[in-house]
Amino acid sequence: MPRSAFSIGEDDLLPLSLGAAVLGTGGGGNPYIGMLRLRQLLRAGYAVDVLPLEALRDEDYVGSVGGIGAPVVGIEKIKQGEECLRALRGVEEAAGLKVSAIISAEIGGSNSIEPMLTAAKAGLPVVDGDGMGRAFPEVQMSTFFIYGLQPWPGAIADEKGNVVVFRHVVDMYWLEKFARHAAVDMGAAAGFATTPMTGAYVKQVAIPGTLSQVLAVGRTILDARAKHEDVVARLLDATGATLLFTGKVTGVRRELRGGFAVGEAEIAGLGAHAGSQARIAIQNENLVLFVDGAAVAIVPDLIMNLHLDTGEPITTETLRYGQQIATIGLPAHRLMTTPAALEVVGPKAFGYPDIPFVPLSLRRATA
Amino acid sequence: MPRSAFSIGEDDLLPLSLGAAVLGTGGGGNPYIGMLRLRQLLRAGYAVDVLPLEALRDEDYVGSVGGIGAPVVGIEKIKQGEECLRALRGVEEAAGLKVSAIISAEIGGSNSIEPMLTAAKAGLPVVDGDGMGRAFPEVQMSTFFIYGLQPWPGAIADEKGNVVVFRHVVDMYWLEKFARHAAVDMGAAAGFATTPMTGAYVKQVAIPGTLSQVLAVGRTILDARAKHEDVVARLLDATGATLLFTGKVTGVRRELRGGFAVGEAEIAGLGAHAGSQARIAIQNENLVLFVDGAAVAIVPDLIMNLHLDTGEPITTETLRYGQQIATIGLPAHRLMTTPAALEVVGPKAFGYPDIPFVPLSLRRATA
Repeated sequence: MPRSAFSIGEDDLLPLSLGAAVLGTGGGGNPYIGMLRLRQLLRAGYAVDVLPLEALRDEDYVGSVGGIGAPVVGIEKIKQGEECLRALRGVEEAAGLKVSAIISAEIGGSNSIEPMLTAAKAGLPVVDGDGMGRAFPEVQMSTFFIYGLQPWPGAIADEKGNVVVFRHVVDMYWLEKFARHAAVDMGAAAGFATTPMTGAYVKQVAIPGTLSQVLAVGRTILDARAKHEDVVARLLDATGATLLFTGKVTGVRRELRGGFAVGEAEIAGLGAHAGSQARIAIQNENLVLFVDGAAVAIVPDLIMNLHLDTGEPITTETLRYGQQIATIGLPAHRLMTTPAALEVVGPKAFGYPDIPFVPLSLRRATA
Repeated sequence: MPRSAFSIGEDDLLPLSLGAAVLGTGGGGNPYIGMLRLRQLLRAGYAVDVLPLEALRDEDYVGSVGGIGAPVVGIEKIKQGEECLRALRGVEEAAGLKVSAIISAEIGGSNSIEPMLTAAKAGLPVVDGDGMGRAFPEVQMSTFFIYGLQPWPGAIADEKGNVVVFRHVVDMYWLEKFARHAAVDMGAAAGFATTPMTGAYVKQVAIPGTLSQVLAVGRTILDARAKHEDVVARLLDATGATLLFTGKVTGVRRELRGGFAVGEAEIAGLGAHAGSQARIAIQNENLVLFVDGAAVAIVPDLIMNLHLDTGEPITTETLRYGQQIATIGLPAHRLMTTPAALEVVGPKAFGYPDIPFVPLSLRRATA
């Protein structure tokens, strides 16, 4: 079913922010501040037009932008507003071309909204889709790079006027390394733009319709709350997600290691899961859910924690002792589970070489 | 007296390497490996033509290149050979112009030779002059930046093919910060190029004739050795340098702090200085010489340690217990001692706010 173009209105902001936090799978940065900035732009007369993936013309160039840095810093060090736009101008100049649409590299968390802010300022549409279908902590973890996008030029810009261009890099891992360290120099929060892509390429590798998905998730939560219904149950119903565990958080261990929040959460089962123990391994995002020692949901599949009563998404940095949570799972898009993708975003890439990726979809079928 | 153009021949290599090590004032990296690389280029038919500063045309653009990183790494991680050239191409592209000559930012240490290697490969002349008249540890510590050169674009390149362009930076300190950290990512040894300058600007701010000075210093040492003369005495005579101290190294404390070799050396007086104690404060280069507690030579003036018998220059990383050394001093060029320059390269800039800069020239006059 072909999707149609639409515009983001003020009514979409809360659903957008909520849905993006859910698909952030625990990470991706807080979309709330981005939402406030977007509201300000909309009220100032800027437009955010969303283009379905199919509407891209093969020969048009699409730019990808987003925030880069430590999510926890992004909350206090609020963007000046044109960091991503300056980074975009940096790659356009280095590549010698102009883009005619913007796409998010990750739809989860704050980077669902960041590209809209840039698009609004640049007078360009955003594409309904992204490169992850969720959030991931590193630059190379998008279908754009996984499927062979030349990783240069890239550019990073801060609020002070610094613009650093990665004119040539050996591979996407070098791009990540340079960009990450420049972001730290810039105060651990900066705007980032990667190689402009042709419309033809984007149509081939982007995860389609994820902006619509984010809005649908957010609207479902709000609608269920308004009707005093069971939010988690409504979400499972609307998204086809699986309820993986319900329980009470009994411990959270988290440390900053190499610029990432690394740790784990312990959860004691409640209700149908009473007597069971769950553990979630974290690296910015939720990576692996273990129930009674067995891995039952594994990255790149989406593992999301919600408050049991309100359905409010819980990011890894807001996870706390005593919270009653529902852990739900969604299968990753097929573009994220090919052998090429698993090399970059599978359990091995996150330091779990002994856990084979068994898709959630397969588990559900055999459960 | 106008200087004339000349070419670097194989006979110049040893004097060049020796003289550059002396003017490195303890730092600047080891010029020996650069000398071997230059010899290889000369034997392969490449030419290194040296242009006097006065010969630059006002409207021509001059590029400045050099190695950046940890000197101790530069010895083991030998350059692939075109790092600086790729960095130069990066700034040319970003600035939208081509340079027609190359100048060194620092004449001391390995960066006296690095620009020659780039010039030879690019088919361009090098300028007889530089931006420091010695060696200094940071990018902004050259007359080029001190006197207001726009600090962007700059570029850094490694042997693997990575090229990072500093498209826009707030100031020269940001350039230093970004470049330093990118250099660390690149393995702590990389090629660096800064904003192309007009010939008119270079003629105004460069320290003139320092390549000739390096060659003269090196030739004097070799000549004195060949004639079994007192090398240190010959050097003092030829350069107008002052003998500041002679003694035996009784202690060296050195640690890597923030990418720099920081520490101090203790020297017990010998001969005319018997009974006195000297101390040299080090940050890559020799910064301050204290004799019996009083600062007698202060950065940016040049403080150089030589083996007492051979006149061989001793870098801060080869300074060792038991060495018998002569510490000699040369006044910095007047462009390095203006109030603007002292802000950037004076004792305060190196963490000695309580030591006022008293020029060596003044001390000598009143001694």
